[in-house]
Amino acid sequence: MKRIMPILLCVALGVTLGAASSSATPTVTEPTQVQGMPGYNQPGQYLTRRAAKLADNMEPVIDNADQNQEARQKLEALQRKTGKRPNVIIFLLDDVGYSDFGFNGGGGALGNDTPDVDRIANQSLILSSAYSEPSCSPTRATIMTGQNMAHHGIQVPPMYGQPGGLEGLTTLAQLMSRQGYTTQAVGKWHMGENEGSQPQNVGFDDFRGFESVSDMYTEWRDPQYNPEIALSPERFNAIRNLPFNKSDVHAVKGGKIENLYEINTDTIRNLDQKWLAYTVDFLNRQKEASKPFFLYYAPRACHFDNYPNDYYRGRSASRTNYGDCVVEVNDIFKKMIDTLEANHELENTVIFFGSDNGPEQEIPPHGQTMFRGGKGSTWEGGVRSPFFVYWKGMIPARKSDGLFDFADMFNTSLSLAGQPGAALAKLVPATTYIDGIDQTSFLLADKGQSNRRSIFYFWNDEISAVRIDEFKLMMKAQAPNTITHAGFNGGFSGSVEQAWTALLFNLYTNPQEDESVSIRHIPAAVPIFGELQRYQAVLKKYPPHHQISLK
Amino acid sequence: MKRIMPILLCVALGVTLGAASSSATPTVTEPTQVQGMPGYNQPGQYLTRRAAKLADNMEPVIDNADQNQEARQKLEALQRKTGKRPNVIIFLLDDVGYSDFGFNGGGGALGNDTPDVDRIANQSLILSSAYSEPSCSPTRATIMTGQNMAHHGIQVPPMYGQPGGLEGLTTLAQLMSRQGYTTQAVGKWHMGENEGSQPQNVGFDDFRGFESVSDMYTEWRDPQYNPEIALSPERFNAIRNLPFNKSDVHAVKGGKIENLYEINTDTIRNLDQKWLAYTVDFLNRQKEASKPFFLYYAPRACHFDNYPNDYYRGRSASRTNYGDCVVEVNDIFKKMIDTLEANHELENTVIFFGSDNGPEQEIPPHGQTMFRGGKGSTWEGGVRSPFFVYWKGMIPARKSDGLFDFADMFNTSLSLAGQPGAALAKLVPATTYIDGIDQTSFLLADKGQSNRRSIFYFWNDEISAVRIDEFKLMMKAQAPNTITHAGFNGGFSGSVEQAWTALLFNLYTNPQEDESVSIRHIPAAVPIFGELQRYQAVLKKYPPHHQISLK
Repeated sequence: MKRIMPILLCVALGVTLGAASSSATPTVTEPTQVQGMPGYNQPGQYLTRRAAKLADNMEPVIDNADQNQEARQKLEALQRKTGKRPNVIIFLLDDVGYSDFGFNGGGGALGNDTPDVDRIANQSLILSSAYSEPSCSPTRATIMTGQNMAHHGIQVPPMYGQPGGLEGLTTLAQLMSRQGYTTQAVGKWHMGENEGSQPQNVGFDDFRGFESVSDMYTEWRDPQYNPEIALSPERFNAIRNLPFNKSDVHAVKGGKIENLYEINTDTIRNLDQKWLAYTVDFLNRQKEASKPFFLYYAPRACHFDNYPNDYYRGRSASRTNYGDCVVEVNDIFKKMIDTLEANHELENTVIFFGSDNGPEQEIPPHGQTMFRGGKGSTWEGGVRSPFFVYWKGMIPARKSDGLFDFADMFNTSLSLAGQPGAALAKLVPATTYIDGIDQTSFLLADKGQSNRRSIFYFWNDEISAVRIDEFKLMMKAQAPNTITHAGFNGGFSGSVEQAWTALLFNLYTNPQEDESVSIRHIPAAVPIFGELQRYQAVLKKYPPHHQISLK
Repeated sequence: MKRIMPILLCVALGVTLGAASSSATPTVTEPTQVQGMPGYNQPGQYLTRRAAKLADNMEPVIDNADQNQEARQKLEALQRKTGKRPNVIIFLLDDVGYSDFGFNGGGGALGNDTPDVDRIANQSLILSSAYSEPSCSPTRATIMTGQNMAHHGIQVPPMYGQPGGLEGLTTLAQLMSRQGYTTQAVGKWHMGENEGSQPQNVGFDDFRGFESVSDMYTEWRDPQYNPEIALSPERFNAIRNLPFNKSDVHAVKGGKIENLYEINTDTIRNLDQKWLAYTVDFLNRQKEASKPFFLYYAPRACHFDNYPNDYYRGRSASRTNYGDCVVEVNDIFKKMIDTLEANHELENTVIFFGSDNGPEQEIPPHGQTMFRGGKGSTWEGGVRSPFFVYWKGMIPARKSDGLFDFADMFNTSLSLAGQPGAALAKLVPATTYIDGIDQTSFLLADKGQSNRRSIFYFWNDEISAVRIDEFKLMMKAQAPNTITHAGFNGGFSGSVEQAWTALLFNLYTNPQEDESVSIRHIPAAVPIFGELQRYQAVLKKYPPHHQISLK
């Protein structure tokens, strides 16, 4: 009886429970309007709405028919003018928190002024509920595959040449390439160092950057962080001889990695400027090109081991390594926008701006978030990204709290490239489940709403939580200081705790997630429980993979 | 030796220690530039700069000579065009937190969309370090007197007809009136109900609003909050018979309070709309008036006891009373701007937008802040206000973290009205100390910096903390749950704890104020200690008053 009752309630409330429905025509059930009913229907409130399946191996979508048409017309008008598909840029920062930029209340308030990022953000669609995975490599692989980390299997970042990466998965770069795009990756890779996972072998025409993550190049050398290694010749050499790449590298599609020079605590300082210069060259070469381009641009900044260069060191008002780096990011982003503008490419380029996870709270100074927790955690602070989508003349300046998963960048980019909605299902193997959703109309329609009903949060390959609207049902939570009894709140510390029965947080009234409202919100909890059951069925049919996991 | 050493260090660092210097010409010592010295001088970094005394009874100011001239020229040009002084509006909310609006990362992210406030904020000077007092009446009296709460003496809000208020103090309304302004107050008063403290007797030509605070009209009647009173006829009547005003009232300068109708849990719902209508009428009457106006507009919103009206109830996406109220505030502010624009008064009107203290965290749902603590506390969450200054065509869109004290609205308004800088000293009794600073040039110059060196925080009449730049030296802190061992963090709960020696917080890297950096930051702590000593001398010469205090 205990297990059946919620299901009966779900059915009574008209909630989709499984992946059973696969009708070709999406059907949407609107809540019945009772005469004299109090209150207002807000846009994008999906607790009791059905999402429609487009294909068995794709997440269901909310059908917002009018805005789909509006977006299509806008796109067609642009294409008539330019004669090609739009360029796509993904600008993805490292370890930067929700509140770090001025457009979200930080910036100068934290001693890190970001006037240009703020100015562009305020001409964009600012998304306040854009979700990454809890850490770096999982998030990057989610963008690149359209899958959450349970499905793509990169559940923790590979370190010092550990195996695991994109090899064998269908990537955004491959599919954009097939759509006729020039594909360029610059900066941090960290989706596998093994040959089959390297950028030039998973769809990119060209790559300039490093294969791993900032701290792999410096931590073992730096007496500030690891004196026990850095000041022990024997240990130092043991790490040095591990089979991981230590260079700023370049590679061309199908070719071998070319090591340019070794990265150390000195040369790391100018990496972001070198990569910016490389990108400006790339953008200038694309000026008036017949092919559109896809640029995946991932600065080293502002990963916790920041080593500012001579120009930026001390340039932030906070004068911290972290703050100097935020200021550098502002300037890097400005230079990219200025270059596109000078090349008259701004009107034909959509730019996604975000961060791969929340702030690394174990190593001060670090990023800031108004939410609970940080990197490594499924508390909002770990996964809620500072995020906007800029497209001059195409996306009006506005804000939305509609749900957006980083996997949606996969579907949306391909939609803009000519493979909208269900078309994508056939571009991947039938056993591959696509967790992303085509959000083109959410972005482009003047009052566009999210096409996504829910967000799932993962601890390795297990569901940690699910959100619909303002409600987050939490099954597994990170509890800090439970094993260690001391230390910082964040990073990958603490223990996994399983909810006794049900924790339900209202993220609007309680963004700090410290008061469960479940006993007074059973009418909200039940449909979310239905959504959980639906995805549990998906995970049975399309089971988790383990490319790299700590579980 | 212990007490002398810091003083010697201060002198060595060139820090002003007391109120001794009172030379007519302000002198500024710039830090000596050492050749090859690393780093950059940021605008508005005042740790080692001297502030200059303008008069013995005024706080010293940083002399930013160039921007003073720029601002003066801008003002003169405007006055040549309009033929009169600019209008001044102070728009002061109740219990709204730093992060509540979209322009600071909240808004839709908290289910309370504020598109119009955000749009205007992003055309304004957004100040991320604008400081109120920790609670309602103290803050309002600070705006009205240019004094902090130690000096004006209203250290806690008077309740249910308790004595204590503005009577006997020199007010902003009186001085603006003397400068030829029409003076209007609308909304919440709460600066004394006794006759001598009522708005029409302290300088306002006209007042429409209530004399006290939102909860005085409802809490004792409402079984939701106070069943022990509301459902006991004897207790209910005892409260009802206390000598406090229970009405929406109107008053004309020098006249008596006229009670319009009793406010209760029903009629309170439409107060803000009635007051808005009254204000729109006022603004329309001022169209093309020969006299400029000063409008002090203080909505009931969003004090914790929110009772949304039929139109707004459920209108926020959070559907909380608090959220509905934030949405109503957005519309109220929009209506005010639209009215000024239709009347062609926007270019000649400066508008200060802020909140009287941080969120009331003991009564959910409540406001949000990315800082520590809330209302009643001198943690940043209690006193850091969402704040901007809008003046179409006069103040360029930008952000600044320069220090701004709510007392500065007093000096700055009077400066715009024709009494800049030191002129003010002679408009108040010689025994009255003015804690505000003329910030006209900070606001008006295209790259204006704050003219204020430090912020002082108070617990009743004692200094709780002092901030210069990003450093906050804390002497007395609110510790939650120490006496009660349980309950919420915020409001007026917890205990006062005296720092053992010195707590120094870096507000840029640690906005949550939970890591003292004092032992590694003695070079920063020493000049701040000097600033503390300077103001201790001020408090000896111009001692605290007690209009109403819990100490």
